[in-house]
Amino acid sequence: MPLHGGQVRQVMRAFPDAPTPFVDLSTGISPYAYPFASPEISALSRLPEVSDEEALLRAAATAYGVWCPEMVVAAPGTQMLIGLLPLILDYRRVTIWGPTYSGHETAWRLAGAEVQVVVSEAEFEAATRVERMVCIICNPNNPDGRTLSLSKLLQLAENSSKSAGYLIVDEAFADFEEQSAPSLLPHPALMVLRSFGKSYGLPGVRLGFLLTNSGLADRVRKIMGSWAVGTQAIEAGCQALADGKWLAERRIQLRRDRARLAKIMEKAGLNVAGTGPLFLLVRSSVAHALWKWLCVRGIVTRAFPERPSDLRFGFPANESAWGRLEQALFDWKARSE
Amino acid sequence: MPLHGGQVRQVMRAFPDAPTPFVDLSTGISPYAYPFASPEISALSRLPEVSDEEALLRAAATAYGVWCPEMVVAAPGTQMLIGLLPLILDYRRVTIWGPTYSGHETAWRLAGAEVQVVVSEAEFEAATRVERMVCIICNPNNPDGRTLSLSKLLQLAENSSKSAGYLIVDEAFADFEEQSAPSLLPHPALMVLRSFGKSYGLPGVRLGFLLTNSGLADRVRKIMGSWAVGTQAIEAGCQALADGKWLAERRIQLRRDRARLAKIMEKAGLNVAGTGPLFLLVRSSVAHALWKWLCVRGIVTRAFPERPSDLRFGFPANESAWGRLEQALFDWKARSE
Repeated sequence: MPLHGGQVRQVMRAFPDAPTPFVDLSTGISPYAYPFASPEISALSRLPEVSDEEALLRAAATAYGVWCPEMVVAAPGTQMLIGLLPLILDYRRVTIWGPTYSGHETAWRLAGAEVQVVVSEAEFEAATRVERMVCIICNPNNPDGRTLSLSKLLQLAENSSKSAGYLIVDEAFADFEEQSAPSLLPHPALMVLRSFGKSYGLPGVRLGFLLTNSGLADRVRKIMGSWAVGTQAIEAGCQALADGKWLAERRIQLRRDRARLAKIMEKAGLNVAGTGPLFLLVRSSVAHALWKWLCVRGIVTRAFPERPSDLRFGFPANESAWGRLEQALFDWKARSE
Repeated sequence: MPLHGGQVRQVMRAFPDAPTPFVDLSTGISPYAYPFASPEISALSRLPEVSDEEALLRAAATAYGVWCPEMVVAAPGTQMLIGLLPLILDYRRVTIWGPTYSGHETAWRLAGAEVQVVVSEAEFEAATRVERMVCIICNPNNPDGRTLSLSKLLQLAENSSKSAGYLIVDEAFADFEEQSAPSLLPHPALMVLRSFGKSYGLPGVRLGFLLTNSGLADRVRKIMGSWAVGTQAIEAGCQALADGKWLAERRIQLRRDRARLAKIMEKAGLNVAGTGPLFLLVRSSVAHALWKWLCVRGIVTRAFPERPSDLRFGFPANESAWGRLEQALFDWKARSE
């Protein structure tokens, strides 16, 4: 069973007769890769210079709407930051608003923290009032798309601040939202994570950001040291983050994709339990059978071992993939009837 | 003043009239970049799969001569590992055999450790016998090329083991040596760092390895999480680490370069205080003046603010660079006479 998205080959080994190429809908990654000019090998033969990384931090500060690049940390993927924060913050109690991306819980437990996962706004808000509590929320949430308003986030951050805690907002899917948490920065208790690879369709580049007050940002930058991000990631980031037009066009395209996918689910008689900018969540008592049905047809979706009735779909990357998904779901419905 | 190598543009801003292109001799990085096939953008639109990273760990295990890939951790550059080890190891006392690469001292001090830098083998060996001491040695050392034998390293690791400490051997420059520390693994107290970018001339790719017992390796891998290393680094590593013939040819070429550089220094009347596989150290009471003399001529070398009589030279990448260096040192000597 897949524990993460992005393990297509591994999953499909269990379905050796499935048609190829596989249609990978197991991740919440945009199917549209930003067409950046990748650096030549000659450019890789030098270390990135300080001024290169500074250009990246400036591009990120502008794109995400924070006041100054000193509030930005660039990392080789958000996952690295998720793994490091429990080691860097000397905090031992953590509350996560679940269900959500499992990486946060895993990282904090690994560091020996006491982790509770709550499932309601009231419980989460109460946790922000507990002394020295790290509270973690994904916004918009993965996989159900739940989104809190900025004013609500600010209120939670204020609570955390008063109780000497932190509020970590994982905005992995916020690039296509109207408003986002960096506009609340600088704030003593607020940390925002932004993923680059998901929105720009370039997860193999490994680039992610922490946005927070400059004191904490400086500490994290120093621990990761010089050259945390390679030449290719710097290039991709500088080019893509400055291209607001491209992102705006993708936003329109992805909304169309989302509507199209929702319609296919409706026709297939499947219950859509939530949607995000880059995924759609189906809830069904036969989700596992549907996952397998799709695997047999070379289509990989994201099952959740701990929530067997949930099945998450990313967006197909081309018409052939759309066609195969539609046909497979049509056949699934016909079989069920 | 440069605090690290690889800051050519930054240094040269102080010398606006220097001829370009700059000759960068400020790093100990091979001038020969491994000509790997960099992945297409379409390959970057997927997350690296577990099997991709496993292939990289297998290639590294074979290249470095450890028994199994479970003893290997791949990271986005050795610097990231140097920054993480103080957070991961709950040790508070550190002894470094200096002078050496400053990154180790910086990282441990940042984590609040008590760091002593010793300058003799006797002092360093004594430290390996102190309870719960982390002892760090670069072998071959940068910038003086000092190299300990394997049997000596084993003895130090045995000491560390008996006193519940660790011996960290930074083998950033060991790829061109006959023998290296990974052959002593698995060992309960031994950790070996290997840099990829230096030997393969691809520092912009960001790839480095920790080789240690599988228990500790597993802990570090888990903290960095999935996808610590991107698609380009996996590709570069898998291709280059499997190409022993290319490395053997570079070894011969780099020995020739080293002899050629030593001869130029001799002709220029400069005292060579040490050499490594990828650099040569000049010691002179007028090192700072020489550094500036070279900067004015567009040639950047590595000065050490804390040891003003040391000047480190990397190897020129082409005949034009060799010619400019030789001419500049010839003129320097003529001026001094």
